[in-house]
Amino acid sequence: MEIKKPLILISNDDGYHSGGIRYLCEFLSDMADLLVCAPESARSGYACAFSAVPPLYLKRRKDIAGAVVWSCSGTPVDCVKLALDQLTPDRTPDLIIGGINHGDNSTVNTHYSGTMGVAMEGCLKYIPSIAFSSCDYNPDANLSYLRDYVRLIVRRVLDEGMPKGICLNVNFPKVERFAGIRVCRMGYGSWIHEVVKERHPRGSEYYWMVGQYRDDEPGATDNDRWALAHGYIAVTPTQMDVTSYETIEKMKDWNQL
Amino acid sequence: MEIKKPLILISNDDGYHSGGIRYLCEFLSDMADLLVCAPESARSGYACAFSAVPPLYLKRRKDIAGAVVWSCSGTPVDCVKLALDQLTPDRTPDLIIGGINHGDNSTVNTHYSGTMGVAMEGCLKYIPSIAFSSCDYNPDANLSYLRDYVRLIVRRVLDEGMPKGICLNVNFPKVERFAGIRVCRMGYGSWIHEVVKERHPRGSEYYWMVGQYRDDEPGATDNDRWALAHGYIAVTPTQMDVTSYETIEKMKDWNQL
Repeated sequence: MEIKKPLILISNDDGYHSGGIRYLCEFLSDMADLLVCAPESARSGYACAFSAVPPLYLKRRKDIAGAVVWSCSGTPVDCVKLALDQLTPDRTPDLIIGGINHGDNSTVNTHYSGTMGVAMEGCLKYIPSIAFSSCDYNPDANLSYLRDYVRLIVRRVLDEGMPKGICLNVNFPKVERFAGIRVCRMGYGSWIHEVVKERHPRGSEYYWMVGQYRDDEPGATDNDRWALAHGYIAVTPTQMDVTSYETIEKMKDWNQL
Repeated sequence: MEIKKPLILISNDDGYHSGGIRYLCEFLSDMADLLVCAPESARSGYACAFSAVPPLYLKRRKDIAGAVVWSCSGTPVDCVKLALDQLTPDRTPDLIIGGINHGDNSTVNTHYSGTMGVAMEGCLKYIPSIAFSSCDYNPDANLSYLRDYVRLIVRRVLDEGMPKGICLNVNFPKVERFAGIRVCRMGYGSWIHEVVKERHPRGSEYYWMVGQYRDDEPGATDNDRWALAHGYIAVTPTQMDVTSYETIEKMKDWNQL
């Protein structure tokens, strides 16, 4: 009897040609059939954005480590929606992966990350989903040292699944040697000094979005920020239900307004 | 002694010229100083996206009902970031409002909504924030009947504030007469049939993102979907901490991997 490999759909927000996609394909090609559908160019900071207005295009690209690769003109979320509907309509992926992102998606970056957009879209489609990000921002970084832990985490999720409405946000610290894994909560902080004003040669003003991260919980030892700073791989189970049930209780008198 | 009015920053994802912004300004102009900074054109489905790459531009527009109005070339989140940094650097707004959106932002739409992006960005900056959306998709709809409830909700939040890390997602049903307010959880459902394939006159294929909403909790009576279907204004307190604490407990053995 032929044992079918699982199918993994891979996308990201750095573009189909990024190093992070190539590493993922190399790490996982013996474990699963791989389908890549990723943006045709960088879409950093795209969160869960999708293209409500413009038409979208798909383009077949060269295989990467045996993976079938498509690029899409839209956002990371568009990539997932189009891949599920058009590229694999008769076979639901067993797992959807965003990444490996070239940059940290821990703490409040969760809300801006297109890599997390991929995982959240997969999760909203009831498919186990993982976002992988490295704290190394160098797009040419050698990420081969992530291989063992990526495979371990993918294996666990393929074997055990994920609870409904929960996906994983996995961030790798930039260290020589990992201290291990910490399953931890999302830390809290703020982006400050986010805007740099410049003057165009013709006189008008324009702005660049940049910013510095300020840790607003410097004493905490149970969040992703702490884990990364101490050499741990931060694994944060992330839920699609964003209701604050505690606040519902506090606001009960509003039902009489 | 002069009593200072509060300052409210308003943005949206439909553009600075939209009806929803005009109604908000008319409803609130006697209660607060109003600053509008909204996208120069529609940005539906932009979620918490921000512009990591392109330069951004601000442009002063005509006042609306006494409100100072700026347009921004970026996303709803960019509008909030730029307004706080450049347009009101010396006076932190007392409240940030997204909307009034022309369309339903309840249930899983929370994750795609640029209107919610505005409120979430305000919340991440520790400023009380509200997203207002109407289930009437007509951009020319007469929304004047929302006036009393918008003012009531804004008054409460100005007077009482919001807990740290919590903002409000407020959706108005399209009804003749409201049944009242329901403080409720986010419902769960799926967008299906999201992709329509077309053929360009020159032969290539392209895709439109559309979709139908499928309620995946048809028996629930405690969520925003139920509230809206029964004529209630759905008020969902929405949290920035998306950690699934229950899943952290279940995954404790991962810390030994």
